Amino acid sequence: MPQLIEALGDHSPLDIIEVESGEACKSPEVCFHLWSHLLELEFTKSDVLVCLGGGSVSDMGGFVAATYKRGISCIVIPTTLLAMTDAAIGGKNGVDLSNVKNVIGTLVQPEVVLVYPQFCSTLSDAQFLSGMAEVIKHGIIAGGELWSLLQTLSPQVREIPLQILRRSVEVKLTIVREDPLEKGRRKVLNFGHTIGHAIESAALHDEKAIEHGLAVAMGMMVEVKLAERLGLISSNDTNEIVRVLQAWYMDVLPNFPNWKKVEPFLSHDKKVEQKKNVYALPVSVGCFEIVYTESALDVQVAYNEFVED
Amino acid sequence: MPQLIEALGDHSPLDIIEVESGEACKSPEVCFHLWSHLLELEFTKSDVLVCLGGGSVSDMGGFVAATYKRGISCIVIPTTLLAMTDAAIGGKNGVDLSNVKNVIGTLVQPEVVLVYPQFCSTLSDAQFLSGMAEVIKHGIIAGGELWSLLQTLSPQVREIPLQILRRSVEVKLTIVREDPLEKGRRKVLNFGHTIGHAIESAALHDEKAIEHGLAVAMGMMVEVKLAERLGLISSNDTNEIVRVLQAWYMDVLPNFPNWKKVEPFLSHDKKVEQKKNVYALPVSVGCFEIVYTESALDVQVAYNEFVED
Repeated sequence: MPQLIEALGDHSPLDIIEVESGEACKSPEVCFHLWSHLLELEFTKSDVLVCLGGGSVSDMGGFVAATYKRGISCIVIPTTLLAMTDAAIGGKNGVDLSNVKNVIGTLVQPEVVLVYPQFCSTLSDAQFLSGMAEVIKHGIIAGGELWSLLQTLSPQVREIPLQILRRSVEVKLTIVREDPLEKGRRKVLNFGHTIGHAIESAALHDEKAIEHGLAVAMGMMVEVKLAERLGLISSNDTNEIVRVLQAWYMDVLPNFPNWKKVEPFLSHDKKVEQKKNVYALPVSVGCFEIVYTESALDVQVAYNEFVED
Repeated sequence: MPQLIEALGDHSPLDIIEVESGEACKSPEVCFHLWSHLLELEFTKSDVLVCLGGGSVSDMGGFVAATYKRGISCIVIPTTLLAMTDAAIGGKNGVDLSNVKNVIGTLVQPEVVLVYPQFCSTLSDAQFLSGMAEVIKHGIIAGGELWSLLQTLSPQVREIPLQILRRSVEVKLTIVREDPLEKGRRKVLNFGHTIGHAIESAALHDEKAIEHGLAVAMGMMVEVKLAERLGLISSNDTNEIVRVLQAWYMDVLPNFPNWKKVEPFLSHDKKVEQKKNVYALPVSVGCFEIVYTESALDVQVAYNEFVED
């Protein structure tokens, strides 16, 4: 932040609005505060909102920019690995309601996303691993080079080589460009997120907020097992994916919440279509299928494989 | 409303959410209430929000639909002349903040706009005249047939011939289709609205809310005079426009608020670009120019022609 202000110098008049970090800032109240603040500052449609922060800041700030005076320009400067590789890219923004994630939001592309990888050195372990979950997700979705590169990394080293970060961003960008409005192909990016969001919402509900990426890692484990149960993916491929996820996450994940706490949040999922939950499930590394399911039984069984008694 | 429910019969499960009519419903609080209600009803992306009401209801409801789960389908059934001919068409939605109109909103087209002209018979005089202001605005913008047809109407008769309503809707639709995002041509639709919105906000601030169309009629009078002062339009054409507006509105308009009360709201206008107010000013009936002005003096002089001492 101080570096940014110094770099801008006197070239641009700058007003700074600080918000709480993390999920706490993704509330209608914070939006209200920001809209009012921009109005007081007499922000016009030719001004720009710069969102400097993690994924929560760009989620919330992107929504405020997309809706203030029917949309002003937005520049996103992600400061977490999760935001760099995922949240800040693709235009999805949103805030939470009644502990349900992203109930209110739009899909509007930011003007610029400025990735400054050095910010990664400021992250806590949990933040770093949270971001890595989306990088690994991109590896499972794209397969090929990114998946191979990931096998060369040691989960104990809290650093991401530039080549892997760049490749991960490219995977997301390519898919988003192909299908910006998520009519088809983009749905694969939801891998791990149907279960992951429900876990995250349940944790939020119990006031034990969990890093988004950690919930996604948990979601990916369950959803791979679900794919196996549904006969979509071989046991070999299932084990290959689960092995990588466990190498990274076994020691750091919280306990899986009881299924009864998670299930109610599945029906609130944005991805529900005609009362059916939608899952992006792997058929193999690099190959996915979109599955609509009404029955919670297979999901419950897959989920319970990870719940400790 | 009862007719609608009967017509739908048992074909569609229907949940009804009632909101206050008029500007009162265009608040972040009402949106919050609606978002929460839709979430409780477990509304999904395959459900539809039907906005039955005047322009305020479609403005607010359109915003809620555009932002709930990043956008669900929206059908608008306008019940006022103003909404039929203007507010419900074109995708602009929004709610107010600190008495400033439409600070928060998006530009998203509804799925369907269903115009049922018989609703006009339920309108009060002020509501009817408010809608006629937008019809007359479309006449001044388009000239030609609509402008000629308008000359045949008597301002004392509170009925709008179907041919005129249809033509007025077509004028708006044609312009919106040509320039949905208001990059150019669509700006002409703001005729009367730069001053009109400021008058409306000032009135709202003084808790003397005024019908939107009446404020627009006042705004058009001032803006024609401004166009004349700037040498854009001849005195003949100015008089032709002012004559029609006065025939309709002389007896029904409230007093113009003091300039000092109106001016502060001009700087909050969404149309401000690079600190300059933007006006759509007539060069003649059917021909407009977009004018950017920093100096409030000409505007003030034009405005004060209508203020009673």
